[in-house]
Amino acid sequence: MRILIKNCELNHLVTNILIEDNIIKQIAPDIQPVADKVIDATRKAVVPGMFNGHTHAAMTLMRGYADDMPLMPWLQEKIWPLEKNLTEDDVYWGTKLACLEMIKTGTTSIIDMYHFFGGTARAVDEMGLRGMLTYVGFDFELHERASVYKKEVQEYHKSLINYSSRIGFAMAPHAIYSVSKSLLKWIRDYATDNGLRIHTHISETIGEVNDSIKKYGLRPVQYLQSIGFLGPDVSFAHGLYLDSDEIKILADNGCQVIHNPASNLKLASGNHFLFRELKQAGVPIALGTDGTSSGNNLDMYETMKLASLTGKVAYNDPTVWNANETFEAATASAEKLTGLKTGKIEVGYLADLCLIDLNLPELTPNFNLISNLVYSANGNCVDTVICDGKVLMENRRVPGEDEIMKKAAQVAYDLAKR
Amino acid sequence: MRILIKNCELNHLVTNILIEDNIIKQIAPDIQPVADKVIDATRKAVVPGMFNGHTHAAMTLMRGYADDMPLMPWLQEKIWPLEKNLTEDDVYWGTKLACLEMIKTGTTSIIDMYHFFGGTARAVDEMGLRGMLTYVGFDFELHERASVYKKEVQEYHKSLINYSSRIGFAMAPHAIYSVSKSLLKWIRDYATDNGLRIHTHISETIGEVNDSIKKYGLRPVQYLQSIGFLGPDVSFAHGLYLDSDEIKILADNGCQVIHNPASNLKLASGNHFLFRELKQAGVPIALGTDGTSSGNNLDMYETMKLASLTGKVAYNDPTVWNANETFEAATASAEKLTGLKTGKIEVGYLADLCLIDLNLPELTPNFNLISNLVYSANGNCVDTVICDGKVLMENRRVPGEDEIMKKAAQVAYDLAKR
Repeated sequence: MRILIKNCELNHLVTNILIEDNIIKQIAPDIQPVADKVIDATRKAVVPGMFNGHTHAAMTLMRGYADDMPLMPWLQEKIWPLEKNLTEDDVYWGTKLACLEMIKTGTTSIIDMYHFFGGTARAVDEMGLRGMLTYVGFDFELHERASVYKKEVQEYHKSLINYSSRIGFAMAPHAIYSVSKSLLKWIRDYATDNGLRIHTHISETIGEVNDSIKKYGLRPVQYLQSIGFLGPDVSFAHGLYLDSDEIKILADNGCQVIHNPASNLKLASGNHFLFRELKQAGVPIALGTDGTSSGNNLDMYETMKLASLTGKVAYNDPTVWNANETFEAATASAEKLTGLKTGKIEVGYLADLCLIDLNLPELTPNFNLISNLVYSANGNCVDTVICDGKVLMENRRVPGEDEIMKKAAQVAYDLAKR
Repeated sequence: MRILIKNCELNHLVTNILIEDNIIKQIAPDIQPVADKVIDATRKAVVPGMFNGHTHAAMTLMRGYADDMPLMPWLQEKIWPLEKNLTEDDVYWGTKLACLEMIKTGTTSIIDMYHFFGGTARAVDEMGLRGMLTYVGFDFELHERASVYKKEVQEYHKSLINYSSRIGFAMAPHAIYSVSKSLLKWIRDYATDNGLRIHTHISETIGEVNDSIKKYGLRPVQYLQSIGFLGPDVSFAHGLYLDSDEIKILADNGCQVIHNPASNLKLASGNHFLFRELKQAGVPIALGTDGTSSGNNLDMYETMKLASLTGKVAYNDPTVWNANETFEAATASAEKLTGLKTGKIEVGYLADLCLIDLNLPELTPNFNLISNLVYSANGNCVDTVICDGKVLMENRRVPGEDEIMKKAAQVAYDLAKR
């Protein structure tokens, strides 16, 4: 299958792009139309699909179910009671809705962490996105829970053969406060033995850091280093409360950090993301939305603006998180965090890309497209989405979208009544 | 002219709304279709049009022209050189583009502050929005400039008869550091004599406060009180650096404050807006986008999310700026700041309202519409806009939008070359 994108704007110049199977094959102003499908992209710009580095997709089911609450009552009275009754079918429909929203806002790759891997994987695969998906692990120091988790995670890992090559599997201990040292070590070993990546939460709140110091005499990153957990295959969500020693450890071990501004602000976890220090140390930085129960939507364009603006004010410096580096954190970072050649519009890269409708007031005038995308647009500027060489959205329509919204809403209302 | 909106959702209940001329005449589930126009609003929610309490509309021309710069080089090297060459025609086209963007994101009322009142007023009037428009005053202590300004402002005031009743005129000294005491007093008197409101910038940066203390021995609000400037007809943009005495003075005088989160964050002015203290004191709070040269867009839905989320993190309290009070700051506050019966969906109010398309993934599920609008949606959820009883947008199309974008972009590029 070959797709020719004609007359698209790339870095403010008009060109053509030829996609062959799932790869960007050629970028040139003079490609002859020898394709199975030709897309006229006049007055449209081509950009990489967004990479959502941290989400819990199925939590779309809880969007707007509980807001404006402190973290613990929110979890204990609202979110956890709902999650206790979740089924794999719920997760499937919540993830379908999430994928729909992500496609409509120009995301093509995600790292997801949740329960019921089967529901997530089936939904992401069907919707056509690329996902490094996980089965989140908790044992709360209970030996029995750890045993069950180990068995389940191996089954999920084996089930990967049922899905397309867009679906990847990674290990995901929830956090150091919810996973025992022995399970963390088992996860590390399982990842090494099977060539899998690891994704986990770290230092989302200051309380978590203080608890770690109290329990282990070490800050969270130091603790993970002490048990041999770190490596270039480990990515961390949040990382708000890191000290300079921890940043050095992350850099020395090649770890990556994913900033989730909407969630961190809304739960009042803090506006402390150490962009400048992490960048200086050479730690790759990506962006994520977190789940919609805290961040409320999955729009990576909005996430870029939030990250940049709140970063500038945190450092009292408007030059921090400039438009280009913010855009890269939301796109090119995918390669470092997933190991896949995605997140760039270059020959040889995976054909994960979007066409932006330039005929929008918020993109007018167009002095600097990246500035407009980071600071002015939201995900609704995306007109066409191609992932793995397949068209997922054209003219802002995704096949079957009304049915997905209707069914997912019903699943959410039923869940709230259980 | 009568418009019947059928089967719309209002506060999660299905009803009908009858508009007669420019007023909401009736809200009931059983209105007979005796209207000149019937809008089928099935699966659409009705909400008040947004009120953008502080903007410089024509600055759309400078969107993305200069970002990621410190305030003074940004102004001195980029913005002011461009503004020196502005013409009334530029302001007209920049404001047309701004109005288009505001209509497309559900705003119906604005307070604008800029140069060339004639260009602004003509554009806002033609586009159908409601505007409390001003001619910004500077004299930098120069007697000659003050004289010219006084003459011009009186001419602009007289020119109001050329426009529809949607166009209002208010006084707008730029700020205490750019306007002399004598001109401030003249503006205050002119406003009193002519029953006009006053809109100005205050305490946007800590430097401005320190300068005021140095020059007058008083903080900015105290200084304005000392010259008899304050009253319930005065609204202030920014107000980031207020102390408790100033907040009490604002409350005692019935003044209002407009928070502009995007601009304050992007210029790194500070994340200090004193929502809790101002609310406690009873000072009305509104929201604004500021100009697109700093905030980059005019989307009041995005502004709500920014205000709420950054407020929560500033107070380290996720219950601050809850969804309902954030929504009110963006809608119902219009009445207090402009004196007009707008910003609410109630019988007797001006017919300034929007229909929200509920068939959107970011509004699914719909546990709480206000939460979804504040935390998940952006302005693209708006399907239909009615202002002063006239339909400005239906099915997301505004008549003439392509021509406005094309012409305004050309004006912006020409301006940048001058």
